[in-house]
Amino acid sequence: MPKQEETNKVRVFALGGLGETGKNMYVVEVNDEIIVLDAGQMIPEDDMLGVDVVIADISYLVQNSDRVKGIILSHGHEDHCGALPYVLRKLQVPVYGTKLTLGLIEGELKAQHLLKKTDLKTVSSGDKVKIGNVKAEFFRVSHSIPDCVGVAIETPQGYVVYTGDFKFDQTPADHKFADIGKMTQYGKKGVLCLLSDSTNAEIPGSTPSEKATEPGIKAVFREAPGRVIVSTYASNIYRIQQVIDAAMETNRKVAVVGESMKKNIQISKRLGYLRVPKQLMVNVDELSKHNGENIAILSSGSQGEPTSGLHRMAKGTDRQLSIMPKDTVVISASPTPGKEKSIGRVVDFLYRVGAEVVHSDKNVNVSGHASQEELMLMLNLMKPRHFIPIQGEYRMQIAHGNLAKTAGVHPERIHLLQNGEVLQLEEKNATKSTKVQAGNVLVDGLGIGDVGNIVLRDRRLLSKDGILVVVVTLNKKTNAFVSGPDIISRGFVYVRESEELLDEAKQKVAETLRECMDDNVNEWSSLKSNIRDVLSRYLFDKTKRRPMILPIIMEV
Amino acid sequence: MPKQEETNKVRVFALGGLGETGKNMYVVEVNDEIIVLDAGQMIPEDDMLGVDVVIADISYLVQNSDRVKGIILSHGHEDHCGALPYVLRKLQVPVYGTKLTLGLIEGELKAQHLLKKTDLKTVSSGDKVKIGNVKAEFFRVSHSIPDCVGVAIETPQGYVVYTGDFKFDQTPADHKFADIGKMTQYGKKGVLCLLSDSTNAEIPGSTPSEKATEPGIKAVFREAPGRVIVSTYASNIYRIQQVIDAAMETNRKVAVVGESMKKNIQISKRLGYLRVPKQLMVNVDELSKHNGENIAILSSGSQGEPTSGLHRMAKGTDRQLSIMPKDTVVISASPTPGKEKSIGRVVDFLYRVGAEVVHSDKNVNVSGHASQEELMLMLNLMKPRHFIPIQGEYRMQIAHGNLAKTAGVHPERIHLLQNGEVLQLEEKNATKSTKVQAGNVLVDGLGIGDVGNIVLRDRRLLSKDGILVVVVTLNKKTNAFVSGPDIISRGFVYVRESEELLDEAKQKVAETLRECMDDNVNEWSSLKSNIRDVLSRYLFDKTKRRPMILPIIMEV
Repeated sequence: MPKQEETNKVRVFALGGLGETGKNMYVVEVNDEIIVLDAGQMIPEDDMLGVDVVIADISYLVQNSDRVKGIILSHGHEDHCGALPYVLRKLQVPVYGTKLTLGLIEGELKAQHLLKKTDLKTVSSGDKVKIGNVKAEFFRVSHSIPDCVGVAIETPQGYVVYTGDFKFDQTPADHKFADIGKMTQYGKKGVLCLLSDSTNAEIPGSTPSEKATEPGIKAVFREAPGRVIVSTYASNIYRIQQVIDAAMETNRKVAVVGESMKKNIQISKRLGYLRVPKQLMVNVDELSKHNGENIAILSSGSQGEPTSGLHRMAKGTDRQLSIMPKDTVVISASPTPGKEKSIGRVVDFLYRVGAEVVHSDKNVNVSGHASQEELMLMLNLMKPRHFIPIQGEYRMQIAHGNLAKTAGVHPERIHLLQNGEVLQLEEKNATKSTKVQAGNVLVDGLGIGDVGNIVLRDRRLLSKDGILVVVVTLNKKTNAFVSGPDIISRGFVYVRESEELLDEAKQKVAETLRECMDDNVNEWSSLKSNIRDVLSRYLFDKTKRRPMILPIIMEV
Repeated sequence: MPKQEETNKVRVFALGGLGETGKNMYVVEVNDEIIVLDAGQMIPEDDMLGVDVVIADISYLVQNSDRVKGIILSHGHEDHCGALPYVLRKLQVPVYGTKLTLGLIEGELKAQHLLKKTDLKTVSSGDKVKIGNVKAEFFRVSHSIPDCVGVAIETPQGYVVYTGDFKFDQTPADHKFADIGKMTQYGKKGVLCLLSDSTNAEIPGSTPSEKATEPGIKAVFREAPGRVIVSTYASNIYRIQQVIDAAMETNRKVAVVGESMKKNIQISKRLGYLRVPKQLMVNVDELSKHNGENIAILSSGSQGEPTSGLHRMAKGTDRQLSIMPKDTVVISASPTPGKEKSIGRVVDFLYRVGAEVVHSDKNVNVSGHASQEELMLMLNLMKPRHFIPIQGEYRMQIAHGNLAKTAGVHPERIHLLQNGEVLQLEEKNATKSTKVQAGNVLVDGLGIGDVGNIVLRDRRLLSKDGILVVVVTLNKKTNAFVSGPDIISRGFVYVRESEELLDEAKQKVAETLRECMDDNVNEWSSLKSNIRDVLSRYLFDKTKRRPMILPIIMEV
């Protein structure tokens, strides 16, 4: 039986994640069959100028496409399934997810003409499926969106368990509890490796239930003298339900601002995840028929995004709605790291127009991720031989690793994975073998991956001090200037007040060119680099700025 | 006595502050004499690309320079005196401040050749001075830097009191208490208007004493197995003293990384605000003589600034020092709003190289600003007739206004001032009169104010999708192309992989030009706008990007 040896091969790795930290797409290989865990998209870092989204580098999957047997989605959040269309364009494999998860992504797949080609397989908690020859079982977890699952993948050495995003919610909004029974069973049978959500690993105690925000939201709805505007993530179906319930109770009609929120409400309603009483919802243009105290508005923009409904309404640039003095605005979402300031700015706008604002308030928002006590519970239930903290920033994974030590996982069996680092789990021990190709791919418009270091470096330069274009037309034979040199600048100085500077710069260019001619330097590259050097020095001296300098020499 | 009426004229306003909220420079006018309160600089907003610092628009002061009698500095932080050199270049007036405050700014004034020209007047808590005909009295407040004062300005209607930044520290590091006695006296005599620090107005309770971090820092120094690196604001002299004391106690030598920190330590030591035992300080290059457990390093970079010492040491790009596995790094500073992510990134780097990191930990950092209970105390001591919340974001000023209501200030006498909005305090009532010129001036390199909306708009466009320069040389008479069209792009696409796209774009330009000629459209402006339209549509269609398009037509 020469195959025997191979049946013990289990490999786990991450394909993408900002700052090198594995995060939005994991891979488990069992006997050479590849299972992909989630396909999330990431929000670009501040220095990734002009980039729309970031996805994982899936070259490895494409190169080994015959071995890829399926993609498992844990839940319907963008950071877990937003990259799916990109993946499916290159890889035709079945996608496993729960009803709501698949429901939420269908629209985008349809828009991208991928829906018909794709084999979407609906699963429920408790289901066992065979993906290739690999058996996988789904178990329910709680989070801030309904229908979340973790997955336990069978291997000859024990389960590889992937939690997805989770917390332990003791009063889940939909009365569907995390399947602790299953988790215990995996623990008893033997978990080879646990991959668990590290987002809140730095936070002591337990995360409150989704239900914790119910009284707070109802109180606002009862007491607000005018309209109530609630801004939350478009995918936070539980929170949306609370808003609908509170509106019902306080006799308010509900209008929705924001396309993704409208779409998600429609899907969740159709699939039975959202209960919306008849005649509760109205269109934005019908709001004028009602008094302020009978109005509630659900809006996107909880992260202060400048293009979002909330931002537009606050600044008075929305065509249909503006925030007014008697309005009460509730921001019911945790700030994504890095968005604190843009949220603060929206809150300032709202106060400025005279609205009441409820924000950063634990009465109207809770996290969807397990805190330390819950993470310890997960570790104790699973008793994993190996542990990989996933999701979150590197420091949170470190904190989660420390929790695992406390829970009795041997320090040598706690593995923090960088993108592409392959953890090979053998009979007795684990080794980090060579890396596979992995990392982040930047998406800008229709371009996937063409914006790399060079383009970004140029954008950064341009963003700081702008650009100066120098054009001159030379006579090929005589080297005489036939037109120019001309200088055009953008983003460098206020041109109207800088005529003298730019005129002098033009003279510097002319002088430089003449000197070059005199010295018989007439290759274009030398001419250009001379112009660049002289101008750059001159301009820095005069302005202490370093615009990009682009010399263009035309020949006639 | 026709002058009688005028002697009741008191006006208060703010000249600058981000987001229109008055913040870094206030003005009090008593009988036409102008007193300036602080001259702070602001950190540019994220969308102020390439801007170095932001200062207040002082046109009003320059236009009324004969009436400006003096500038009062409350303390030595950059956001209160960083704009002073810019002001003094345009305005020769005496500057009042305490010994440490003036000591800290002297260096910069000297570097800018302003020191000799400037009349620096050292004051102490309790001093009464006459600035023009206006009497002002200084009173000590506590904050995160020594030698802070507030100022009470006498007017015929009562005191105008400016707190500067403050908290009530019951165990001040230098045993110098806030002068509550004086504050009570002002309250008894009558405070016409209180201007008080709103930074922590959203935070309940009281801010801990500066002393609260002493045990935490000492504990780290005692227990760290190797070097301890402490990063804090260069101006936090109290915290620096704690580090020095802890190093002394645990037998560690101290080295300093960062020019501003070195400079501040030197000044504070010379002026007697910092006690540094002999032979405790060593140069960075002497550190190698000592074992890790005998080393402490003080470093700037507590906000994750990419050019700071801490960032360089963490990334291994500092010429002299790198963070090593057994190091313990303490980040002893509150994150400035908007800097959470860059701090997080540095923390990740530090963990990655294997250091222990102590951050976001109230044992090693406290705020320097009063929380709600202390703000109430200030209000109760002063019992102001009018109240202006100053500093902080707009929402914090709103929160502070609400506290003032609770403290019994009449809601109509609580005034949130936008930049330039003049509060005129008359015998009985106050009116907001017409605005004076005010706002923010952006400083970029040597340019003060030339970077405005146009330059910033261009930088924003350039940062998102780069630029495409189109050059063509035409024959003046025949309109024939004599060279080009050529296309050069930067920050738009990866040129090597986009030859086809750019070639086709060139053809589009040629076609467009030919069509224009055929239709006898030959003014440059029309040609250019045609090129721009056609290219822009074509490129968006192909890439969904919108680079700046810069058509240049040369004539021979």
